[in-house]
Amino acid sequence: MRAGRAWLGQPDVTGLSDLAGVVIQPLGQIEDHRGAVLHMLRSDSPLFERFGEIYFSLVLPGVVKAWKRHQRLTQHFAVPVGQIRLVLYDDRSGCPSQGRLEKHILGRPDHYLLVRIPPLLWYGFQGLGATPSLVANCTDFPHDPQESESLPSDATHIPYRWKE
Amino acid sequence: MRAGRAWLGQPDVTGLSDLAGVVIQPLGQIEDHRGAVLHMLRSDSPLFERFGEIYFSLVLPGVVKAWKRHQRLTQHFAVPVGQIRLVLYDDRSGCPSQGRLEKHILGRPDHYLLVRIPPLLWYGFQGLGATPSLVANCTDFPHDPQESESLPSDATHIPYRWKE
Repeated sequence: MRAGRAWLGQPDVTGLSDLAGVVIQPLGQIEDHRGAVLHMLRSDSPLFERFGEIYFSLVLPGVVKAWKRHQRLTQHFAVPVGQIRLVLYDDRSGCPSQGRLEKHILGRPDHYLLVRIPPLLWYGFQGLGATPSLVANCTDFPHDPQESESLPSDATHIPYRWKE
Repeated sequence: MRAGRAWLGQPDVTGLSDLAGVVIQPLGQIEDHRGAVLHMLRSDSPLFERFGEIYFSLVLPGVVKAWKRHQRLTQHFAVPVGQIRLVLYDDRSGCPSQGRLEKHILGRPDHYLLVRIPPLLWYGFQGLGATPSLVANCTDFPHDPQESESLPSDATHIPYRWKE
C-alpha cells in the first residue's frame, strides 16, 4: 500500500495533534430532552477516503487495550459513550514526528472528537470512569488479522506506562 | 432514485422480518474480560451497498423518537449499548408487505442485530430499560433534511400506540 508515505494526508487544523497523519476534529452533538444526535463521519467530509468497516470496542472501567498498529489500515475513532485515554506513539522511521507520544481524552461532552489514526502508528487506550466506554471505529478496509501487529501493554519500546 | 422498487434487495434469510427490503442479521459479539468487540457492517458484506454516513442517536429511557421515513436513504441500525423497541410500518403502495407492522427489540446481549431499513418505510423507536441506549445508524447517503418526512408519534395513520 502507501506505507512509505503513510503520514501524508489532511493536516490537523485544530492543533490538537502534532503527529503526522493524525487529525483530530470536534464532532457535532445535537442534544435535546430526548437524548442526542451524535455525528461521526460522512462521505462528504474531507477526512473520508473509503469505507471498510464500522465496529465497536466496548472497554470496561480501568481496562487497557494496548499496543497495536496496522500496516495499511486508517482508523477513525469516536467515543459516544463513556471516556477513554487514547495514547499514540510514533516510531515511523523518517517521519517528522518520529519519537513523539501523545495522550488524548476522548468522550462526551467535552471531548467528543473524531481521531484519524494513520497506518504504522502505535495506539492503545484505557477505559476511564466507573462505567463501560464504547469506542466506535470506522476504518478504510475491513478487519484483516494479517495486517496488524501487537505489543504487550508494558512493552519498554513505547515510553508510556499504563496505570491499571 | 430507485424509490419505485425500494423494497427490492437482499431477502431476509433469518426469517426475522416479513417486510420487503428489511433485512435483520445477528451480529458478532466477541466478549472477554476486558469488554467486547461488536461487529456492525463491513464493505465485503452482501448488505453493504454504499457508505453515506455513520452517526448515533442517544435515546433516554422511555423516550419515543417517531415517526420518520426517508425518500431515498437506506439505513442500517445496530444498538451496541442499551435496548430499544423498533417499530416498522409499511404503507408502500403496491408493495407485497403493504399494511404490515413489525416490532423488534434491539440490544445486547440477546438481540444484537443489524436491521436494514429501506426507503419509504415508516420507523420509530423507544428507549427501554433504566439507562440511555445508543442507536448506531450507517446510511448510504449523508443526512439531508430535505429527503425525510415526519409524523407525530401518536399519528392515527400508523396502527401502533406508544406507551410513554
